[in-house]
Amino acid sequence: MQIKRVFTLLIALSFFTTPNAQENNNANDSLMVRKIFDEALENGRAYADLRSLCKDIGARLSGSISAEMAVQWGYHRLNKYDFDTVYFQEVIVPHWERGTKESGYYQSKDGTITKVNLLALGGSIPTNGTMEGEIIMFKNRDALLKATKKQVEGKIVFIAQPMDQKMITTFNAYGACYPIRGLGAVDAARKGAKAVVIRSLSLSEHEHPHTGTMHYAEGVGKIPAAAISTIDATKLEKLITGSKEELTFHFEMDCKVLPDKKSHNVIAELKGSENPNNIITIGGHLDSWDVGEGAHDDGAGIVHSMEALRILKELNYKPKNTLRVVFFMNEENGNMGGKTYAKKVKENGENHILAIESDRGGFSPRGFSVDGKKEHLDLIRSFNTLFKPYLIQHFEFGYGGVDISPLKKEFEDIGLIGFVSDSQRYFDFHHNANDVFENVNKRELQLGAGSLSALVYLLDSYY
Amino acid sequence: MQIKRVFTLLIALSFFTTPNAQENNNANDSLMVRKIFDEALENGRAYADLRSLCKDIGARLSGSISAEMAVQWGYHRLNKYDFDTVYFQEVIVPHWERGTKESGYYQSKDGTITKVNLLALGGSIPTNGTMEGEIIMFKNRDALLKATKKQVEGKIVFIAQPMDQKMITTFNAYGACYPIRGLGAVDAARKGAKAVVIRSLSLSEHEHPHTGTMHYAEGVGKIPAAAISTIDATKLEKLITGSKEELTFHFEMDCKVLPDKKSHNVIAELKGSENPNNIITIGGHLDSWDVGEGAHDDGAGIVHSMEALRILKELNYKPKNTLRVVFFMNEENGNMGGKTYAKKVKENGENHILAIESDRGGFSPRGFSVDGKKEHLDLIRSFNTLFKPYLIQHFEFGYGGVDISPLKKEFEDIGLIGFVSDSQRYFDFHHNANDVFENVNKRELQLGAGSLSALVYLLDSYY
Repeated sequence: MQIKRVFTLLIALSFFTTPNAQENNNANDSLMVRKIFDEALENGRAYADLRSLCKDIGARLSGSISAEMAVQWGYHRLNKYDFDTVYFQEVIVPHWERGTKESGYYQSKDGTITKVNLLALGGSIPTNGTMEGEIIMFKNRDALLKATKKQVEGKIVFIAQPMDQKMITTFNAYGACYPIRGLGAVDAARKGAKAVVIRSLSLSEHEHPHTGTMHYAEGVGKIPAAAISTIDATKLEKLITGSKEELTFHFEMDCKVLPDKKSHNVIAELKGSENPNNIITIGGHLDSWDVGEGAHDDGAGIVHSMEALRILKELNYKPKNTLRVVFFMNEENGNMGGKTYAKKVKENGENHILAIESDRGGFSPRGFSVDGKKEHLDLIRSFNTLFKPYLIQHFEFGYGGVDISPLKKEFEDIGLIGFVSDSQRYFDFHHNANDVFENVNKRELQLGAGSLSALVYLLDSYY
Repeated sequence: MQIKRVFTLLIALSFFTTPNAQENNNANDSLMVRKIFDEALENGRAYADLRSLCKDIGARLSGSISAEMAVQWGYHRLNKYDFDTVYFQEVIVPHWERGTKESGYYQSKDGTITKVNLLALGGSIPTNGTMEGEIIMFKNRDALLKATKKQVEGKIVFIAQPMDQKMITTFNAYGACYPIRGLGAVDAARKGAKAVVIRSLSLSEHEHPHTGTMHYAEGVGKIPAAAISTIDATKLEKLITGSKEELTFHFEMDCKVLPDKKSHNVIAELKGSENPNNIITIGGHLDSWDVGEGAHDDGAGIVHSMEALRILKELNYKPKNTLRVVFFMNEENGNMGGKTYAKKVKENGENHILAIESDRGGFSPRGFSVDGKKEHLDLIRSFNTLFKPYLIQHFEFGYGGVDISPLKKEFEDIGLIGFVSDSQRYFDFHHNANDVFENVNKRELQLGAGSLSALVYLLDSYY
């Protein structure tokens, strides 16, 4: 055998761990982490809890009666697990409703019509009856930004931009494509368009359109905004590219904005035995979009968080710091739960040291991303050998989560930590009718709960 | 902020890479690996090829006409991709057929009957009409081995042993539970049982029974062997444990063993430009069980292997060594394809240096397991930084694959490498009716193909 080593730069040693990182790995920790995963896998409640949230309640957009049901569900479920304290925290949330009319089609010069599967983007104004207009297609946002007013005026803008298949972490592809949804209505209205229709933000070709927030800007007219399914978008793009034919788009949406409404975050705690005023939060968001069942987004995060603390309690772990599970309201269209929580924590004079969020679905755990200081990342990397048997190996700087992000303004030294799961299937389900309980795998969900519970245990022990 | 580091043992540096491992990572390699993944994700053929194998052919057990269709399919598909040479390699395979009658139920003393979903294990003898007998249940294989002949004689043994949920790598749980399927008939017959019925080897509760090989032993009577679904097994176990009632089991199977049959491995090559007699094989198995569509097991391995070489050809890569894709026949019940291939390679005086197998499903890639020498593992670990952007981080000693394993007898210095994917969902589909194309995710499959193609490129470059 001949193994040639052509490049001999000896950088191997610093690859996975920073040179000065230390290892936290003793037999007790190893045993405790094993017990945590055993409990998650053998007696786990995450899957049954998720089934209940998805099936007994279902979709739960802020302001809806379903969201209020979810708040009650959360309170009673947390009480059932007998945490030290369970309470509501008032949050004022926006209230947008989809309405009951939502359909559309496009038409060729020869009269042929093709129906599309369409969803209003969250926050869109209605069409007030059928809206119709000539379609002008743009391959991507940049092309739209370069267009002249004359080209666009009075037309319906169709942005065909797909998410980039080449990006390995699908959240990066989502981030890169997000502006067509978040800002498409502003971009198009600035050029005089009467409406905007976008390709759904998904990496797979399927029939379900994806919804999600969109924004209007002060001083720019509001126009209706919708997404069509990726299958419809691909077909429409091909037709326009191929035939150069002029098509008209026709659609109706009776969505509406209602006055803000009172809702709640739901919070439970295991009180710290040494430093009760030091807070470590683990949370997800209780609201979801109004299609599907909010199973991955973010039912998974809700049951992950609850299960993480239930397991520690079940194993009779006495935390040093106060461990808090927070079910945040209104992540999807306003983040009022996250903002309210951060403000209240500060007002109450609590010392919020760490916050962990699970909002990337109930898939196989891969690790954690750290929005904090080098010390936070080093600490998490020091758990390397403890996590390795559970195939958890990703420990990098990165995003924490939407709900916990407002804490950063209030606490300079806080470490925000995002749960990272395998992201490949996430955008098959995100914000669409397919985000249902049946598309969550029991073991993958349980392993996520175990990894979060182990992280909370280790952070509480070593921070 | 206070980060306490209680345990300061500085073992971090030797954690992921061995101390003397080197890094192979230059700009050209990094660029080439990026091109490989781009091709896999943007122009990949793996998913369409898998759809064709699953839908145009479907299940393809050795000896069946479907298996012969698969051989023809493989030959023509490989030719389509215009490799340097494509050829058949004759393999004599066993021929077992399930037959058309396969059903069963159990009955209480009061006459209540409960139907079960049941599959004959591969290789089982038939029941010759309805077989019935009193059920004796064992919690696991050990309990059966400890039983007396008097307890078991004339009864139908039911082994209720489940796969262990606590094992993180599901293949380990499968390996630990495998003896109830592989050896259950021998164990039970030694105690005088008239038949054996096992709980299906799966980690999830669902209605589809799992088939798979079973064995008889010389000098031990042959008895029929079947698996019932995990849902049925759980229900039956509870009933027996709870009521202590005597139940009878009734079932019919008309499976049969037919004479061995001629079949083929299908092989294609990209000839080596420097060392054409040095062979690097990448393969999977073309046969499957006779239920489902053999999508994950091992349609994924077939299209992974073909795609790995197609991508290198598409990118105009000229290999130093001969790269060979092998579609092995008969992995499931005899491994005659693997055995024949190893023998022929030796006879032909070829120098087989490395073999890679993909037979762990079309899930998200996690890395590679190495059945070889430390030098093989060190070499693969030297690609760490090249694979990290693709979230591939598992490089450990471990199993290569069934099909490539006979090469080890012929080539002492060979390195066998197994593709390791995320294993959590594998045993939801393995050997049952759910192993269909729809349960394979396009991106996960494509990423697997990309990672294998990149590995082949790097091994060919640096070995």
